[in-house]
Amino acid sequence: MAKNEAPKTAITPTRNEDYPEWYQQVVRAADLAESSPVRGCMVIKPWGYAIWENIQRELDSMFKATGHKNAYFPLFIPKSFLEKEAEHVEGFAKECAVVTHHRLVPGPGGGLIPDPQARLEEPLIVRPTSETIIGAAFASWVQSYRDLPLLINQWANVVRWELRTRLFLRTAEFLWQEGHTAHASEAEAREETLRMLGVYATFARDFMAMPVLEGPKTASERFPGAVDTYAIEAMMQDRKALQAGTSHFLGQNFAKASGIKFQTKEETEEHAWTTSWGVSTRLVGGLIMTHSDDDGLVLPPRLAPAHVVILPVYRGDDTRAKIDEYIDGLAKELRAQRFGERRVEVEIDRRDIRGGDKQWEWVKKGVPLRIEIGPRDVDAGVAMVMRRDRSPKDKSSMARGELVGRVTEILGDIQATLYARALAVRDGNTHVINSRADFDAFFASTGGKEAQGGFALAHWSGDPEIETAVKDAHKVTIRCIPTGGFEGAPWADALTGEGQCIFTGKPSPRRVVFAKSY
Amino acid sequence: MAKNEAPKTAITPTRNEDYPEWYQQVVRAADLAESSPVRGCMVIKPWGYAIWENIQRELDSMFKATGHKNAYFPLFIPKSFLEKEAEHVEGFAKECAVVTHHRLVPGPGGGLIPDPQARLEEPLIVRPTSETIIGAAFASWVQSYRDLPLLINQWANVVRWELRTRLFLRTAEFLWQEGHTAHASEAEAREETLRMLGVYATFARDFMAMPVLEGPKTASERFPGAVDTYAIEAMMQDRKALQAGTSHFLGQNFAKASGIKFQTKEETEEHAWTTSWGVSTRLVGGLIMTHSDDDGLVLPPRLAPAHVVILPVYRGDDTRAKIDEYIDGLAKELRAQRFGERRVEVEIDRRDIRGGDKQWEWVKKGVPLRIEIGPRDVDAGVAMVMRRDRSPKDKSSMARGELVGRVTEILGDIQATLYARALAVRDGNTHVINSRADFDAFFASTGGKEAQGGFALAHWSGDPEIETAVKDAHKVTIRCIPTGGFEGAPWADALTGEGQCIFTGKPSPRRVVFAKSY
Ligand SMILES: [Zn+2]
Ligand SMILES: [Zn+2]
Repeated sequence: MAKNEAPKTAITPTRNEDYPEWYQQVVRAADLAESSPVRGCMVIKPWGYAIWENIQRELDSMFKATGHKNAYFPLFIPKSFLEKEAEHVEGFAKECAVVTHHRLVPGPGGGLIPDPQARLEEPLIVRPTSETIIGAAFASWVQSYRDLPLLINQWANVVRWELRTRLFLRTAEFLWQEGHTAHASEAEAREETLRMLGVYATFARDFMAMPVLEGPKTASERFPGAVDTYAIEAMMQDRKALQAGTSHFLGQNFAKASGIKFQTKEETEEHAWTTSWGVSTRLVGGLIMTHSDDDGLVLPPRLAPAHVVILPVYRGDDTRAKIDEYIDGLAKELRAQRFGERRVEVEIDRRDIRGGDKQWEWVKKGVPLRIEIGPRDVDAGVAMVMRRDRSPKDKSSMARGELVGRVTEILGDIQATLYARALAVRDGNTHVINSRADFDAFFASTGGKEAQGGFALAHWSGDPEIETAVKDAHKVTIRCIPTGGFEGAPWADALTGEGQCIFTGKPSPRRVVFAKSY
Repeated sequence: MAKNEAPKTAITPTRNEDYPEWYQQVVRAADLAESSPVRGCMVIKPWGYAIWENIQRELDSMFKATGHKNAYFPLFIPKSFLEKEAEHVEGFAKECAVVTHHRLVPGPGGGLIPDPQARLEEPLIVRPTSETIIGAAFASWVQSYRDLPLLINQWANVVRWELRTRLFLRTAEFLWQEGHTAHASEAEAREETLRMLGVYATFARDFMAMPVLEGPKTASERFPGAVDTYAIEAMMQDRKALQAGTSHFLGQNFAKASGIKFQTKEETEEHAWTTSWGVSTRLVGGLIMTHSDDDGLVLPPRLAPAHVVILPVYRGDDTRAKIDEYIDGLAKELRAQRFGERRVEVEIDRRDIRGGDKQWEWVKKGVPLRIEIGPRDVDAGVAMVMRRDRSPKDKSSMARGELVGRVTEILGDIQATLYARALAVRDGNTHVINSRADFDAFFASTGGKEAQGGFALAHWSGDPEIETAVKDAHKVTIRCIPTGGFEGAPWADALTGEGQCIFTGKPSPRRVVFAKSY
């Protein structure tokens, strides 16, 4: 490739050229994760795992602040447990990892084979989710209304056998948290379900800088065994929806299947009301697709493993000592400050590689602030500051004292800018649709290689056949029936009124969100 | 049971009556964990999991301070990977969970069966440890000496099929961390191996208040595939040893098996030198057995989920408001202080149950400080303070200001007291043994129901046959060849000299530690 043909962006292809391939290249360029030799399972590399650790830390403290405690339950679920709840087994039996033996022995051909003498009497399923095994525990923990509510969360790995996988977005093994709670009344369990949906929405907005719509799913999109499933739905830059978290009101279904019973104050015996709710490493995929650009990953400061990277520019060995001293002092002053609950995290990259390569590496890794320091900067008591939410070439010289004094304000400004941009993308690509013809046009692939229309707000009568037909025609589903997360949007008013289904003409209580999705 | 026959301790049986059963009862009384319906797997309950979270947090920060980064690798290991290292597969094939199918379908008898159409071409092993799968990743990550050292840690669950299990101490599934590093030279890898052994020893002493001997294992006790295995070994109150952490120098064995090669500065190609090191939820078992007494769990303050529990003693409803106000203010002042890296964690137990029951519950849960507040304490501006390292009946009244001012000092004193006691148990039950006859007498079961002699420091010539014979005769093994962790012990000097093997009369470079063990 001749020099004048060089790509103008750090990532090729660009988002417009090929969004799915752009995503893979951002993940690779930021060194977040990679495929493993185990089909469908990923390796989460240190930079990607550090993002997950930050997600975990913040969510964990929100869960604890709302009264939940962490516990840990077995990886394996006896087959008979999975069979207890009919819809649940239907939902998960088709894609699960089944353990059948507990030993390998040399086979006739030379290698090892599962020992026929060590076959399990009852196969074990690697947990796809833990309702049934946690239900068994709850059944023995709960005797009386005094034991309720029981508010438990688990951080764990789960496995759902997937053939078509994509790093972070859909993998056979993934990391997640699953909250499981039991309550004495339906009202309290419903309140918990919505409380945790709210925690997820708050986390998405305040930490991920990702706007989300909140609301119930339609019956066909419910968690297997749930009475009601609620979700937060975000719009990615290709205008597809990403379900970023779910909260389920399970009614008494799992309590009945597992025998979670309690004695009431009035000394009657009742089944408990349960909930479950979860988010996973999929959030990292959502983070990438919400903010990243054609130069690579862009990290919201609240979740960035490093807020600042300092890049010394040595000019010969005689300037090294004075630059290093300056940098160490600067790093110390920056680290002494707190941004949110964390200290300001500073990386210093002293590697002996070309300055341009070094810059681009950190651009691609998405660090919010890059600070370049050369000998003249030391003499002048300044620093070259570059923000990841601006063009890579946009540098500004700033006095050291000002930089130190303003660093958390600048980080906050980057966080706010990313949220505002994501909100503009979502709000600008959400449209009120009032006829079947407009709906079909909206989702027809006309505008470019793969035009997704975005979010279509339309009236729908509640017929599941319509959902099936729309899915078949456009690969479009109802993401949720929005009840929150749209305040201030230009189309907010349209969301609350009654109307007529655009497919059947029947009455509709409220518009729903149609979109293509991950 | 008549009143005067009531047990004098909160836990029955006592340690002296039946140590293994005492252990189970302490775990149950403190509500730490329980068996699950899945054979060999435990449920870690909130109070037990909170201890593990504290262990994780402190270790994680020590790993990061020594330059390690966290990552995550697949739960499943292809059978062919396990087969790559001969000793390794020999060590783990006998006790592993084997996944053979990826779907369940309705069987002829009505229930679900593994779908014969969904049999995996290659069985997958649920990781018993991750050397082989991480080795495959390292092989692609490492190209040049510039990529080294590679310093990675993983927090994960692992499975080793065990039939005889005991909560925390030996379970089929357990939680752990596994460090995996690759280096350009043998010297550097050996240094890393010992550095992490040192981190474990420091953690055991400073956080767990558990004295440990450090040193290499004999060849027969090495990790399968390792060149050298080092361990920290603690003495439990029944005088048995507990291996609390291991650090392995793997030489080039796994690098050769996985193809981890790098180009040196001199442009030759070499295999890397690797290490691995781990501790697990077994540490919680060690913590329990080191400090707990016949009234239940005793927690070292550095790892206690709550440092302080406040117990209001309401005398009728008219005193409730003033007691609550006093307590809230006190809790706020206590929580405003830091003990180590954490704030002082305070629980307030306002439940309406008998005061004595409440007290005993928190005694059994091992909280370092219990504070009782009644109406007269409020009037006098004092609090009743009880320390878990003293008798449950040992109460002292303390002015509120003094309590607030001294709380971290008192917690530090409890931590030091627990360490000193554990050290006295270990040092007092460690003996220099100079003849085979004394050795046999030391480990013969003469002194009571099940007298373990403790640690025997004896010369040994290095013959593995002696190890086998001693194991057969006394169920005693060589725990390690101590090189550290005994400074100041009355028998410290005996550990460093040469001598003659007490079994064979052959020369011995150094005494080793014999003991029964978990
Ligand atoms: Zn519009
Ligand atoms: Zn002695």
